[in-house]
Amino acid sequence: MKRAKFITFEGPDGSGKTTVSVQVVERLKAQGYPLLLTREPGGIKIAEQIRDVILNPENTTMDPKTEALLYAAGRRQHLVEKILPALHQGVHVISDRFIDSSLAYQGCGRKIGIEAIYDLNMFAIEGYLPDKTIFFNIDAKTGLDRISSRNFLDRLDCESLQFHQNVFDGYQKVIEKYHERMIVIDASKAIDEVVECAYQAVKGILDEQD
Amino acid sequence: MKRAKFITFEGPDGSGKTTVSVQVVERLKAQGYPLLLTREPGGIKIAEQIRDVILNPENTTMDPKTEALLYAAGRRQHLVEKILPALHQGVHVISDRFIDSSLAYQGCGRKIGIEAIYDLNMFAIEGYLPDKTIFFNIDAKTGLDRISSRNFLDRLDCESLQFHQNVFDGYQKVIEKYHERMIVIDASKAIDEVVECAYQAVKGILDEQD
Repeated sequence: MKRAKFITFEGPDGSGKTTVSVQVVERLKAQGYPLLLTREPGGIKIAEQIRDVILNPENTTMDPKTEALLYAAGRRQHLVEKILPALHQGVHVISDRFIDSSLAYQGCGRKIGIEAIYDLNMFAIEGYLPDKTIFFNIDAKTGLDRISSRNFLDRLDCESLQFHQNVFDGYQKVIEKYHERMIVIDASKAIDEVVECAYQAVKGILDEQD
Repeated sequence: MKRAKFITFEGPDGSGKTTVSVQVVERLKAQGYPLLLTREPGGIKIAEQIRDVILNPENTTMDPKTEALLYAAGRRQHLVEKILPALHQGVHVISDRFIDSSLAYQGCGRKIGIEAIYDLNMFAIEGYLPDKTIFFNIDAKTGLDRISSRNFLDRLDCESLQFHQNVFDGYQKVIEKYHERMIVIDASKAIDEVVECAYQAVKGILDEQD
């Protein structure tokens, strides 16, 4: 039996990765791949409660480091309750967002620094980094334009264009720093093309010999 | 003007530190000391929400590291929203529980290790360690006997005697490791004696010349 792979989808808000992930997973499941699609906080009750605290628009006084600690806490619970059990059963896992989101959002968007957020998250995930990360590359402005039509915007969606620009810059640093596990996709293309690219990339990873 | 002091009260559950802190602060305030008594999560809305997640008796699957991250998050918010603003205004602060609780409870009770919890908390508190810590020393069994008559027991109160014994052992390590800032009080004595000891200790700290 092949070792189950842990893949993450990353990118700025509005990059389309959530929509794409659903279609990619449908196609691969139809071909018989044992595959779990999950998304922070992953439907894990404790992680959902934590996310409610983070995204509550009333929590305007939340300190950036409090936010970073809460994301790490939710990630930890999602990892131990859902991701690791699936991997241990031989099921591949695709997670929509994981550590790189914190490196970009809290490390650069909130200016805590990528290194400090990396160390914090290592406490939380204990070296369970993804085998590969599909990065949906799109500039901050285009991403924001796409989400502006949504009905509900959470506390982070409401941040300024400058914040989202910093997140974008953060992601570029993350791509460079962890290039061995990164597969970068142009997410500004039409959705069908993005799906096809992501599908081929994920299939390639799942078919790899260890 | 003297520099405002940051003092923490620490000890196992049932050590009486909360009751004692109220009486000590009353006496000192009556003498004109500018003094804020606070207690994690300090009435800070965000920290209260975090504490609700931690102590919810239904959250039985909470991972020890999730718990440690949540305590660090609540501590961070309590520090920046309440403790630091008071100190900056020249008001002395006594906090009922702070970093040492995590060193003992999560570091030893949950067996994550004192060093790992210390590093995690340094991310959260950025070196704002207490000037002095009053430690209410009482063995685990006596402490537990005292709290067993309470009407409401939270998720941590409900842990086994072995867990509370590990917490006690953890506190002894913490006392040894950070002995320069520790003042240890025998909390098994009658409450009036404990109040008097704690009062003298705190008054001594507040009257110290920098």
